[in-house]
Amino acid sequence: MNRKNISLLGATGSIGVQTLDIIRSYPEQFRLIAASAGRNIQRIREIVNEFRPLLVSVQNKEDAEKLKLEFSDIKFVHGINGLIEVALHSESNLLVNAVLGSVGLSPTVEAIKAKKTVALANKETLVTAGHIVMEEARKNNVPILPVDSEHAAIFQSLQGERFENIERIIITASGGSFRDRSREELVGVTVEDALNHPNWSMGAKITIDSASMMNKGLEVIEAHWLFDLPYEKIDVLLHRESVIHSMVEFHDTSVMAQLGSPDMRVPIQYALTYPDRFPLQAKKLKLEDFGKLHFEKMDFNRFRCLQFAYDSGKSGGTYPTVLNAANEAAVEAFLGKKVSFLKIEELIERALNEHQKINSPDLQTIQMVDQQTRRYVQSLL
Amino acid sequence: MNRKNISLLGATGSIGVQTLDIIRSYPEQFRLIAASAGRNIQRIREIVNEFRPLLVSVQNKEDAEKLKLEFSDIKFVHGINGLIEVALHSESNLLVNAVLGSVGLSPTVEAIKAKKTVALANKETLVTAGHIVMEEARKNNVPILPVDSEHAAIFQSLQGERFENIERIIITASGGSFRDRSREELVGVTVEDALNHPNWSMGAKITIDSASMMNKGLEVIEAHWLFDLPYEKIDVLLHRESVIHSMVEFHDTSVMAQLGSPDMRVPIQYALTYPDRFPLQAKKLKLEDFGKLHFEKMDFNRFRCLQFAYDSGKSGGTYPTVLNAANEAAVEAFLGKKVSFLKIEELIERALNEHQKINSPDLQTIQMVDQQTRRYVQSLL
Repeated sequence: MNRKNISLLGATGSIGVQTLDIIRSYPEQFRLIAASAGRNIQRIREIVNEFRPLLVSVQNKEDAEKLKLEFSDIKFVHGINGLIEVALHSESNLLVNAVLGSVGLSPTVEAIKAKKTVALANKETLVTAGHIVMEEARKNNVPILPVDSEHAAIFQSLQGERFENIERIIITASGGSFRDRSREELVGVTVEDALNHPNWSMGAKITIDSASMMNKGLEVIEAHWLFDLPYEKIDVLLHRESVIHSMVEFHDTSVMAQLGSPDMRVPIQYALTYPDRFPLQAKKLKLEDFGKLHFEKMDFNRFRCLQFAYDSGKSGGTYPTVLNAANEAAVEAFLGKKVSFLKIEELIERALNEHQKINSPDLQTIQMVDQQTRRYVQSLL
Repeated sequence: MNRKNISLLGATGSIGVQTLDIIRSYPEQFRLIAASAGRNIQRIREIVNEFRPLLVSVQNKEDAEKLKLEFSDIKFVHGINGLIEVALHSESNLLVNAVLGSVGLSPTVEAIKAKKTVALANKETLVTAGHIVMEEARKNNVPILPVDSEHAAIFQSLQGERFENIERIIITASGGSFRDRSREELVGVTVEDALNHPNWSMGAKITIDSASMMNKGLEVIEAHWLFDLPYEKIDVLLHRESVIHSMVEFHDTSVMAQLGSPDMRVPIQYALTYPDRFPLQAKKLKLEDFGKLHFEKMDFNRFRCLQFAYDSGKSGGTYPTVLNAANEAAVEAFLGKKVSFLKIEELIERALNEHQKINSPDLQTIQMVDQQTRRYVQSLL
């Protein structure tokens, strides 16, 4: 494999840090050519010192200017244009998009147009603009490599297989922090309760989404776009151990699955090395140590956010944008202790009910609906 | 896919019957061009009437001559030369070798030399002559497609993957009819007890081998040859539900697995359609209906035959031939109610201890050692 030059958006987040771990462990194979981060300047300094990228984008202009004085041989940019500049760096041949939120959208589209391979950890890109992103990917013949453990599992299960032979995909769900509680028992749960995920150590937003099952809902919509499958062919299965990361059933009834310990470096590294695999120092899966793996039918009444996601996905147009924006605003309110956990669902439902669908929205319309939805949810707080 | 002309050895056995089911369900894609069977003349008549193969081999000369009078447009042959003629039929492009026992060996080798793809259900071929078969397969660039559910699972898990990235393969074992009994509780078990397999409906010999774990031992040796892996990279895991048919762990800790209901038509059809898959009317896997899957470390003291198999495989040469022949003779004695179940192990152990290894045996030597071993075991009865 020739050395891959990587543009990394979201270098200081959970996925970003683990992407840097992998780049660090294979210096002959990977180079961090450009990176973006938010406002954690100290961490950015460390990344710059260690990896010496040619280009760095930060959130604020002031921070960019401060850093320019410290590192004269490195270019610093900022804001959304900075993200796009990182994504489009002329020497980069792989964009790892691990930025949080809808700011990840336009850098992805621009990178695809520039025919760069995209490893995608930014959910919003596919949830809100899957129709645009996948159309551009097809047009430019650019592979979109999933970084999520579930989509990476499906992607691996599809290697050497034919698309038309797929019967359905089965996305597994751990059930999150509250899987053993009834709806009644969710009354009064705290932010601290919700952040205590049983299997995965992740960021706060995604841990809450995991507890509400919205994370799985967003994954269903992502899978719809990523694998070009109708929602009828996408199932969700409760699997508390998160050992089987997801599965593909083919029309001969054969099921292919990818399994492993919960370590995001596995799917991240696979996206970086695809179609090869490199050795990784990670915990090996020993099924005999688990003894049992559990599987349970998904309860759509218990996990209403998952139903909202299927409904939004099937309705299409701007509905997934509303779903995502309302969820982000509601989770933010929950994390800020302004609303209860169950109120998250209620806010999303109200935003969806209020919305008038716009079909095949362009990026501008998506951004507009996103902003409107957030304002609407905030008005309800 | 062009229509495949199939030579089928062992058409009246369990795998043979299911192979015919698949040929029947896709008449545009598959044609039975030649077939062999043993002494079940009535069943052979039915097969001839339904599939109209051009060539049929039976065990005895008398049966062949009788059938010639009944079907004047079909060629009937017999014996081991008949099997080879079926395997080599000029219009055949796929040999399904589902014959039982060591008679399956030379037809496989001859078919490979004639550059025909081989779908292999005959264990003896790889167990006793893996070094010859795989060398010929490499030399003639002929794919060997496994029909066993475990090897088919590994084969499917390796699609799109690179050989050098394999960390280990994990063959699952249901544990057979006696998995919940201690060694002490095996004293006095009957043939009927042993034939009552919890998951799979198979022939008598393989069901006994499943109860003694010798079936898994033979599979380990087959896997060694089929996937060109040292025994240190082949593990066996107890998995009572037989839902995960086997797995491959890669050096990034990722594990790929193939799952499904216990239906041999799935791996048989996959071998016939490879690398494609055709729809199959079979029971779909619903993990939620299982609720739990169980996994347990293999106990080599409880299942001594598995230890014999690893030891024989590692020692190499004619040891696997002795293992297999001693087992066949011992199981035959058990099925004939001449010896107890636990005596099977003892007879195999004595045959192995008695044996002087011959390295890199040719087919003739293998046949000779096979016969000697059977005679030795019979002398102990």
